[in-house]
Amino acid sequence: MTAGTRIEQDAFGPVEIPSDRYWGAQTQRALGIFDIGEERFPAVLVRTFGLHKFAAARANLKSGALAPALASAIETAALELHKGLWDEHFPLTIWQTGSGTQTNMNANEVIANRANELLGQPLGTKTPVHPNDHVNASQSSNDSFPTVMHVAAATEMMGRLRPALEELRSALAQRSHMFAEVVKIARTHLMDAVPMTMGQTFATFEYQIANALARIDDTLPRLLILPQGGTAAGTGLNAPRGFDALFCATLAEATGLAFAPSPHKFEGMAAHDALVEVSGALNTIATSLLKIANDIRFLGSGPRCGLGELLIPDDGLTSSIMPGKRNPTIAEVLVQACFQVIGNHQTITLAGASGNFELNVAKPVLIYSLLQSLRVLADSSRVFSRRLVCGIEVDRERLATNVDQALLAVTALNPILGYDRVAQITATALQDRITPRAAAIALGFLNGDEYDRLVDPAVLARGTASR
Amino acid sequence: MTAGTRIEQDAFGPVEIPSDRYWGAQTQRALGIFDIGEERFPAVLVRTFGLHKFAAARANLKSGALAPALASAIETAALELHKGLWDEHFPLTIWQTGSGTQTNMNANEVIANRANELLGQPLGTKTPVHPNDHVNASQSSNDSFPTVMHVAAATEMMGRLRPALEELRSALAQRSHMFAEVVKIARTHLMDAVPMTMGQTFATFEYQIANALARIDDTLPRLLILPQGGTAAGTGLNAPRGFDALFCATLAEATGLAFAPSPHKFEGMAAHDALVEVSGALNTIATSLLKIANDIRFLGSGPRCGLGELLIPDDGLTSSIMPGKRNPTIAEVLVQACFQVIGNHQTITLAGASGNFELNVAKPVLIYSLLQSLRVLADSSRVFSRRLVCGIEVDRERLATNVDQALLAVTALNPILGYDRVAQITATALQDRITPRAAAIALGFLNGDEYDRLVDPAVLARGTASR
Amino acid sequence: MTAGTRIEQDAFGPVEIPSDRYWGAQTQRALGIFDIGEERFPAVLVRTFGLHKFAAARANLKSGALAPALASAIETAALELHKGLWDEHFPLTIWQTGSGTQTNMNANEVIANRANELLGQPLGTKTPVHPNDHVNASQSSNDSFPTVMHVAAATEMMGRLRPALEELRSALAQRSHMFAEVVKIARTHLMDAVPMTMGQTFATFEYQIANALARIDDTLPRLLILPQGGTAAGTGLNAPRGFDALFCATLAEATGLAFAPSPHKFEGMAAHDALVEVSGALNTIATSLLKIANDIRFLGSGPRCGLGELLIPDDGLTSSIMPGKRNPTIAEVLVQACFQVIGNHQTITLAGASGNFELNVAKPVLIYSLLQSLRVLADSSRVFSRRLVCGIEVDRERLATNVDQALLAVTALNPILGYDRVAQITATALQDRITPRAAAIALGFLNGDEYDRLVDPAVLARGTASR
Amino acid sequence: MTAGTRIEQDAFGPVEIPSDRYWGAQTQRALGIFDIGEERFPAVLVRTFGLHKFAAARANLKSGALAPALASAIETAALELHKGLWDEHFPLTIWQTGSGTQTNMNANEVIANRANELLGQPLGTKTPVHPNDHVNASQSSNDSFPTVMHVAAATEMMGRLRPALEELRSALAQRSHMFAEVVKIARTHLMDAVPMTMGQTFATFEYQIANALARIDDTLPRLLILPQGGTAAGTGLNAPRGFDALFCATLAEATGLAFAPSPHKFEGMAAHDALVEVSGALNTIATSLLKIANDIRFLGSGPRCGLGELLIPDDGLTSSIMPGKRNPTIAEVLVQACFQVIGNHQTITLAGASGNFELNVAKPVLIYSLLQSLRVLADSSRVFSRRLVCGIEVDRERLATNVDQALLAVTALNPILGYDRVAQITATALQDRITPRAAAIALGFLNGDEYDRLVDPAVLARGTASR
Repeated sequence: MTAGTRIEQDAFGPVEIPSDRYWGAQTQRALGIFDIGEERFPAVLVRTFGLHKFAAARANLKSGALAPALASAIETAALELHKGLWDEHFPLTIWQTGSGTQTNMNANEVIANRANELLGQPLGTKTPVHPNDHVNASQSSNDSFPTVMHVAAATEMMGRLRPALEELRSALAQRSHMFAEVVKIARTHLMDAVPMTMGQTFATFEYQIANALARIDDTLPRLLILPQGGTAAGTGLNAPRGFDALFCATLAEATGLAFAPSPHKFEGMAAHDALVEVSGALNTIATSLLKIANDIRFLGSGPRCGLGELLIPDDGLTSSIMPGKRNPTIAEVLVQACFQVIGNHQTITLAGASGNFELNVAKPVLIYSLLQSLRVLADSSRVFSRRLVCGIEVDRERLATNVDQALLAVTALNPILGYDRVAQITATALQDRITPRAAAIALGFLNGDEYDRLVDPAVLARGTASR
Repeated sequence: MTAGTRIEQDAFGPVEIPSDRYWGAQTQRALGIFDIGEERFPAVLVRTFGLHKFAAARANLKSGALAPALASAIETAALELHKGLWDEHFPLTIWQTGSGTQTNMNANEVIANRANELLGQPLGTKTPVHPNDHVNASQSSNDSFPTVMHVAAATEMMGRLRPALEELRSALAQRSHMFAEVVKIARTHLMDAVPMTMGQTFATFEYQIANALARIDDTLPRLLILPQGGTAAGTGLNAPRGFDALFCATLAEATGLAFAPSPHKFEGMAAHDALVEVSGALNTIATSLLKIANDIRFLGSGPRCGLGELLIPDDGLTSSIMPGKRNPTIAEVLVQACFQVIGNHQTITLAGASGNFELNVAKPVLIYSLLQSLRVLADSSRVFSRRLVCGIEVDRERLATNVDQALLAVTALNPILGYDRVAQITATALQDRITPRAAAIALGFLNGDEYDRLVDPAVLARGTASR
Repeated sequence: MTAGTRIEQDAFGPVEIPSDRYWGAQTQRALGIFDIGEERFPAVLVRTFGLHKFAAARANLKSGALAPALASAIETAALELHKGLWDEHFPLTIWQTGSGTQTNMNANEVIANRANELLGQPLGTKTPVHPNDHVNASQSSNDSFPTVMHVAAATEMMGRLRPALEELRSALAQRSHMFAEVVKIARTHLMDAVPMTMGQTFATFEYQIANALARIDDTLPRLLILPQGGTAAGTGLNAPRGFDALFCATLAEATGLAFAPSPHKFEGMAAHDALVEVSGALNTIATSLLKIANDIRFLGSGPRCGLGELLIPDDGLTSSIMPGKRNPTIAEVLVQACFQVIGNHQTITLAGASGNFELNVAKPVLIYSLLQSLRVLADSSRVFSRRLVCGIEVDRERLATNVDQALLAVTALNPILGYDRVAQITATALQDRITPRAAAIALGFLNGDEYDRLVDPAVLARGTASR
Repeated sequence: MTAGTRIEQDAFGPVEIPSDRYWGAQTQRALGIFDIGEERFPAVLVRTFGLHKFAAARANLKSGALAPALASAIETAALELHKGLWDEHFPLTIWQTGSGTQTNMNANEVIANRANELLGQPLGTKTPVHPNDHVNASQSSNDSFPTVMHVAAATEMMGRLRPALEELRSALAQRSHMFAEVVKIARTHLMDAVPMTMGQTFATFEYQIANALARIDDTLPRLLILPQGGTAAGTGLNAPRGFDALFCATLAEATGLAFAPSPHKFEGMAAHDALVEVSGALNTIATSLLKIANDIRFLGSGPRCGLGELLIPDDGLTSSIMPGKRNPTIAEVLVQACFQVIGNHQTITLAGASGNFELNVAKPVLIYSLLQSLRVLADSSRVFSRRLVCGIEVDRERLATNVDQALLAVTALNPILGYDRVAQITATALQDRITPRAAAIALGFLNGDEYDRLVDPAVLARGTASR
């Protein structure tokens, strides 16, 4: 035996483990096998396992499946894990068994070792607290890992993404109010169209984010349903009757989210439709954010050869060769985050579709991708909101010039002159490089006063459809 | 002028059109330009335009924007279009302007020509009913086309897909009840696991489809919101105040779906988040159906060298070289339909993310893909349900043999013997090619009676988690 | 027996078929089963089956597997099918068995009926020419359908897509030469950067399309490899030795493409990696075309409030509400076609990944999607080239104004003044709303003559990197 | 000034930086702005920047753009970075400007500080070596970052992925030879088909991987083309003529890969088609690997209720609840890695398609995803090869039983009896639960000797198509 290691036993024999590590034999074996990539589960997943094992221990205690002394030690160790004290003792990447068994065993082993330590035993004894028989009591990786997937996704979605989107919505609303009277020319097919206001532009963005919040909320009825209690394959074998409800009650209390037991626990292991659905919501939100970020980038393009209607706040970053050049870096980050989310949605869809029989074995890559999507969408939305949206201004001079020059405010004359004669006005204006007002008068359709009364951009912008 | 054609005028000059065709100049111009592919909008989209123009004419009448005589002729022509009488007069493919303007103009032109005909005029006169000034009155392609997209998607989703999924759910439930007592061996990681029932297998499928229905329903609050009334860019220019509500009321009455005007009409033209969201729901449902179809295919594989637990009904189709070979063709169709839906989701996501400023110009490809997804998912689910699920039987002999041979019912002994000793039982059984019962006795852990009492597959299958 | 039908027999019994239809029992059965969707294989697939059965008959004749009289009748009928005479006798959609067996049988049946007719027999006799024993001789659906997939894809790729891309490349090259001396301001991060020429813009596009051609060509070594001769599962059972080479020789002669037999015929049935690879090339090309189409749309945006550097030719289509509005419709079509191709790539990837054991059973949806991608990419590129690129002009006045106003030509001063002092110039110019020339002088870094010598946009545009 | 920090200046003012960090002002500013996610570029990207700056310094020296003393210090510092000595001084995530400017500046700053240190100056002096004027001399982020993207991707592809696939190919070939005489029943549509050998199964896999290698190699002609020398936007502004060739020569010598300057440097900044193409190759390879991993998982399923034809080596990992259960964990890892690669391909496609004008600003997320795909595909293939494929055995008893029972070896009788009579044999065998041999005799079509001569599985398996 090498100095600095200890020996642990599992069903397959002895394994050498670094002395100061709290993981055990199954984790150590996995470390030796899966020498792949660098991708780790984020801390939230590992810490959710702490909460999970705490809730399980409590449910076992109440069901009589675990003696009070053991339950108490497990609960303490599990809460430490939940608080982040043992993050460093989860050495595996996500590239492991498709059931996430190794990370569940890692949690069982760390908690068992720590609980035994609390009870005065050295690491590696597996007694009085055994990782499988006690920490994992009434559980299987089959039900524990997907339960943790749901809980981690729900807490990230409600605790990180939702507030970030709320903040973005609020920032957009504020700009909408600020720019309520700023008239601009709408662009359809990228081409100059009728007058509207910059306030309407931002109100439209705000409405998209309001819907984003509704989309998130609508996934909850299925996301909060947990397969815990299904144990092996979904049967509930070796779990006390009622274990599932006790478990969920503890979890709901700790998180403030109304987690509830699945009526068909097989489904929660064999399929991950609820998580694919969440990813679908994020995918939709990504399309909204791409539209918003791209519009803002283009409206702020310039400073002299672009559209130049918006002034994007300066972030102090610049080109490595073009001195003083300012770029919409933060919008670019949001765009990239959206690409990641849309690509992850594909990974998640494939993973979700790939279950066979009683188990989906693409769990690690699925939850890794989903938690990444939640995180980067939340963070980039928050930075976008705080550092970009909150500081956007308009170039009123440029906007006014555009409003004067644009041709299609004359659409307002359709009910008076008919479509075909209005088309003559725009054709003439374009050909003779004059304003549509001048063209309308030259064609003898209207005099100047009539034109000004009928084609007032500020009035048209308010339209009949705007709020 | 060629025999068999007539001349129509639009803002750009004269155009030659086949005499018996009801379309007009803009449609004919588009025909000459977009010589691309063969993809057509399905009839449902064209016919929805009929309903749309009917509702618009009625709203114009009530708003005073259209004289009763014109409104009446337009309504009659529009209803004929809705009923499918003029399908053949929509010659364009989906490969047209990204706003769908040409198909909107096609509808305007067909209805105008037909209305004029009803009023005693020859085709091509554009009077008294003008395609832009009257059929398109108070409308733009910008608001009309996306409105039709929503209405067509909603009617297909609720009228075609939902009933098909209901039928599938019911067929799965029936099998679940039929097989409630049939014990089988669960498979996790594809490997033999603990006992469960075939009824649970089908109940799990049923639960997935029950959730699919909820997923569809949860998209409705946003799908039923219509941008009609926004006209150009979303401003509502040239639409009478209240037009939107009148329009939606007629549509709601005709369809039984609670369509309502959007409070932010700009959003409904510039973005299609609600349709991306619907596609996301279909994408999730596709992952469910892939799981179900694949499980059934594999469980029915054989007849002699496969898993052979399910007997899939014969469809009378066979191999072109291997005489009498029977294949799970209908499950393969469902699988392929799901691949189409998942790929379409990508097209729809890209199209949805690509809007700029006041208009998304990927509308045709987006709605084409979405209506295709709705249709093939509905049809293939219905055929799968009727021709495959409804006729599935089990091979009881094969299932019983499997239950006897399988090793891991001994998991039930964990609470008695502890995990590590149970592992010895399975290792011994596997190595010595004996039953786990024999191994448990040989190892001296239990006698036969104890074993039979503790490890009864039918009891274990019922577990604590099953309903 | 109903008037207007005849009865045919297959291994499962009698089937009623419309008297004038040339298909047989298996096709008719499939029609009754797969009542799904509307998607049909394009004519090219059906007609390729004609070529395929012709080449097979010839190889059978040469191998002695088919008597000359039968071979001759089959060859005649097959060539008729190849020429498009029997398109209407393929009534099935793509929603069929995943092996494409029904469409292979449809071809066998149509050719057998037609060959028997040529030999003086009524439809439905199956003698002297039997659809399985003679038309399908030495073949299976397992090897025939994927062979037809490869042949149809290769002919569409080389005969339709490649020429369209060549034409586009040539049109871009022509514009590149036309605009070789037109100086413009580059945009990085959408923001004004250094001077370049519009010729370089189009040369860049041309280079992308030149690479697109290379990408297509690089897929050929694997696309031209055919599994024909593998018969059932890939074994070659019932195919004469050498059949594969004879078959490929006929096909190569007929198409001018160097088709060759696969050394591992199992692979060509069980997987479709070569077709996924082709789709990957199309996916890459779609990203190129999206870049090109979007740049052109944006550079041509306006006419008065956009970038307005390019003038896109008018296509005579317009808005239904905004009279005379011109939109970049053809660029929008190309963009939409690219979205379809990228989404199809997902369908194709899923289909390609889904094979099990000796057969991939997602063949119909895979080849449907791939042929659609090839067709719409080719057609939309051709229309884009002819109707848009060939007529693009530049707005020289707008470009010159931009060049004068833009700030970052001063990057040329970095080697003289150093990055930090040049940054002062741009900051001063931006803040004081003056030209960078004025700012450089005001800051005392250079006099006017020095500036004009060092910062000549036309010289800078030519740079050291341009050709 | 806080203890433990120093002040650096850039164009926007002073910035406080931890004293022991080698990065500078632009990196520090970025750190404060982009508080998003946890995703870091892998070490290979950072270290490639070392090689890149080394080659640039050498080219600058040879071009006379850099004094020998400065060039020498920069080269030394750059090589240290290349060797991994300064990994810890790259604190930014990938969520930064879409041009990768901040990471390029990070490299410039670390090398400048280190070079100055080597020249006896404290950190932060920016003299004699200035990060922009000297380390970044003749470069821009616009050309440097995409050059590093290509170089890092090429070295990972050729140095990590290619050897891993070679190893997998070799392992599959070895199994193919080992199992050359092992007869099995092919499965098409998952259903029992004709006899073949297990050697053919593995030869098919091997052929897929052989093609995978060709697919990788075919991307090289475009991957090895570098935009370096294009500087700002692609013009080559401020780069000495010939800089590009000198740069590539150094790089080619250092890596053994034939890097060459792009003839259209604009293209290499504005688009990333070559990298999308590489991802397309990986996507195709992922579909191959999914097929292989899934087939092996299913063929090894059991041990008693599955297909059980392959015996997958034991890895010492097991279920947390079912004692002694063995799962195909390594195949599951490979499957998950493929899902990641396919999802990443979507991210990369979107990123690649999103360029505007002279710059694609989704570079960080694109190269992050591509390097991840290369890494996890390589690593998981290597582990799959070493720990799974190399240890696969067959269950000869199970295979022989299957061969005896299976029905469709009788396909060999088609040429003798015709398709329809052979269909009677299989129908009878299936219905009467007898062997096809018994059925053939019972139907009076053949006697036993004839049957045994014509239907010898071992002969049939060799077929005419196998090698």
